[in-house]
Amino acid sequence: MVYVTRKIEFSAAHRYHNPAFSAEENRRIFGKCNNPNGHGHNYVLEVTVGGETDPVTGMVLDLKELKDILEREIMNRMDHRFLNYEVPELADQIPTCENIAALIWRLLTPKIKKGRLTRVRLWESSDLYVDCYGDGAK
Amino acid sequence: MVYVTRKIEFSAAHRYHNPAFSAEENRRIFGKCNNPNGHGHNYVLEVTVGGETDPVTGMVLDLKELKDILEREIMNRMDHRFLNYEVPELADQIPTCENIAALIWRLLTPKIKKGRLTRVRLWESSDLYVDCYGDGAK
Amino acid sequence: MVYVTRKIEFSAAHRYHNPAFSAEENRRIFGKCNNPNGHGHNYVLEVTVGGETDPVTGMVLDLKELKDILEREIMNRMDHRFLNYEVPELADQIPTCENIAALIWRLLTPKIKKGRLTRVRLWESSDLYVDCYGDGAK
Amino acid sequence: MVYVTRKIEFSAAHRYHNPAFSAEENRRIFGKCNNPNGHGHNYVLEVTVGGETDPVTGMVLDLKELKDILEREIMNRMDHRFLNYEVPELADQIPTCENIAALIWRLLTPKIKKGRLTRVRLWESSDLYVDCYGDGAK
Amino acid sequence: MVYVTRKIEFSAAHRYHNPAFSAEENRRIFGKCNNPNGHGHNYVLEVTVGGETDPVTGMVLDLKELKDILEREIMNRMDHRFLNYEVPELADQIPTCENIAALIWRLLTPKIKKGRLTRVRLWESSDLYVDCYGDGAK
Amino acid sequence: MVYVTRKIEFSAAHRYHNPAFSAEENRRIFGKCNNPNGHGHNYVLEVTVGGETDPVTGMVLDLKELKDILEREIMNRMDHRFLNYEVPELADQIPTCENIAALIWRLLTPKIKKGRLTRVRLWESSDLYVDCYGDGAK
Repeated sequence: MVYVTRKIEFSAAHRYHNPAFSAEENRRIFGKCNNPNGHGHNYVLEVTVGGETDPVTGMVLDLKELKDILEREIMNRMDHRFLNYEVPELADQIPTCENIAALIWRLLTPKIKKGRLTRVRLWESSDLYVDCYGDGAK
Repeated sequence: MVYVTRKIEFSAAHRYHNPAFSAEENRRIFGKCNNPNGHGHNYVLEVTVGGETDPVTGMVLDLKELKDILEREIMNRMDHRFLNYEVPELADQIPTCENIAALIWRLLTPKIKKGRLTRVRLWESSDLYVDCYGDGAK
Repeated sequence: MVYVTRKIEFSAAHRYHNPAFSAEENRRIFGKCNNPNGHGHNYVLEVTVGGETDPVTGMVLDLKELKDILEREIMNRMDHRFLNYEVPELADQIPTCENIAALIWRLLTPKIKKGRLTRVRLWESSDLYVDCYGDGAK
Repeated sequence: MVYVTRKIEFSAAHRYHNPAFSAEENRRIFGKCNNPNGHGHNYVLEVTVGGETDPVTGMVLDLKELKDILEREIMNRMDHRFLNYEVPELADQIPTCENIAALIWRLLTPKIKKGRLTRVRLWESSDLYVDCYGDGAK
Repeated sequence: MVYVTRKIEFSAAHRYHNPAFSAEENRRIFGKCNNPNGHGHNYVLEVTVGGETDPVTGMVLDLKELKDILEREIMNRMDHRFLNYEVPELADQIPTCENIAALIWRLLTPKIKKGRLTRVRLWESSDLYVDCYGDGAK
Repeated sequence: MVYVTRKIEFSAAHRYHNPAFSAEENRRIFGKCNNPNGHGHNYVLEVTVGGETDPVTGMVLDLKELKDILEREIMNRMDHRFLNYEVPELADQIPTCENIAALIWRLLTPKIKKGRLTRVRLWESSDLYVDCYGDGAK
């Protein structure tokens, strides 16, 4: 088994706000992230696929196919978007790094047919990232 | 003369839209950056101050003072903001990296009293940055 | 389960010297790191906390609380310090990256109340880092 | 147990070509990587050794010894080489990142006597890397 | 005047060899870079264009146009190539970082119509880069 | 003219203290950097040499010679040293990034015989660096 990781970047805006909280609670819990107009990030996504190396191609999976999947599932959905308003799966969630990474896991895992998704790492900034792993993954 | 550069980061959202253009022109010229809800970035700002090294302190300027200036003039104004709606100086401009860097130049240059502001470099993403220089600067 | 990693940096000096060795042995084993006056590094610390995402906040833990813990336990103890002389827990140890990382693990693990500390990664330079993991951690 | 990771870099050329394929198939499967003259990369290798910290030295292993092993086994074999023609172990394989990383694993694992090799990570470019792990490794 | 810099990456192989030298001289002067089969790098290119910001678009130049120029003039010519054999302009030169950067300057400078090319920076590895500047540039 | 930049790293300790100040003034002006035991950094040094490319070698200067100069003049003097006590040229100065960079400029400029030293950039941490330039340099 080897594990191949591909990195991509996307830019998005978001806002942290829970309608069940009062304005004051939202401000206290989410701080500047509760700013009504939102703010944004350059997200860096690392997607890891584990599998056997195919002896004919020397590859675990075709990186062009992986790129197409990432384009279709992630870039089209999230790049240059305001995540709260334009990504339906996040409509009822706080679009934290934790929740976005978990959504990316759910979006990608059924699409990877050669090998198996073993880790999604999402960087929100140069000092913060979140990892999601599948069962039995490294 | 030596030149001291300090780096800081802030997160902000923005949208490119010129009300003088039709919807179609805006889309053609600004592409995904015209998305009505906006998107965002982790901006990295490098501020360079040139001057003589003070023999008593070994420093061109007090970095704590510079940090206070950056906090007051840049972080408070731009961090966790939607630039189009919350930075009045950008209200009538497209908030491109060019225009934000030029604004930062105008905001900082009168505040630097020890030494002289010689360059503002603003990174919008890992593959794009803009430089503004003063007269006679390196 | 998701895993949140926060990065911080601190600057410290240290010296490798085992009083049980002769001067020559110390020099042979520790090389330039045995220099009597010491030398220093910009340490980069990555702290990983694993846990369930709280559906109300979208977070595994409050990052402001984590920042306070890191400030109190790590920055106050180690930043701008000479580790051999100013960190009592390292007084009888060689302050290698291995030993500092293990100490950070011991300092932080009882303080993380929401989620669980699962990895401490300490970079001593751009080409050397050490990882400590807890039981059952990724 | 702690895990020490050392990073090194080497520069090499390679070409993807399977003689069992037609020219057209090679082009379709390997794209620009099939270019007959080859192309190249700055490879970044991260080697992780896990073990107990020796209380006398504060180290899992002697980093000078590790450096010698990496120099002898990896740098001498691969640095400034055309991998297809100059690394005999890769002569019958496509020199993909997967296959090079697996070879590095096989070359290094018997040479690490203090501690145990637990991960080989090989970066081919800033957006692609491959990991190989041993049994029971993190 | 502001200065916009765009970064791109390409992978290429090269070999240092001057046919006017003896084999021994080539080896002595160029060291491992004289290896007959060649070796390779991930080159990182930073292209800087200086100009006035257009008040209508907020931009010095259209980054999509710049991307097209870089694709046509640089990527198509150099990416996934063996520079000695596939870039005719380098056929009679040692393809050092100095000569490649100077060639990129000559290729790009007539193509930049809005603003003016003011710097080409070419990284051959993480610890080596070369700059070419035009007249009067920063 | 082209400009070649080589990067190297060294680790050193230092302390900011002016014996002409009272203890309280030292503490107020230099903050944590006044800690009596000192602290340290991984310094990153970028040395730029400008010159004509030699048509016979394709190089501005022999990088092996530059490496030897940097080894002899900088690494031997500063790497794994406590700068205040072991670098005589800094004995009467505060070893700030400004003063260290200026010293490196003075040490290197007479040693560069092929081409001319045009910039010394010294990073003290990932968010602070200092530049020294010669006359007429870019």
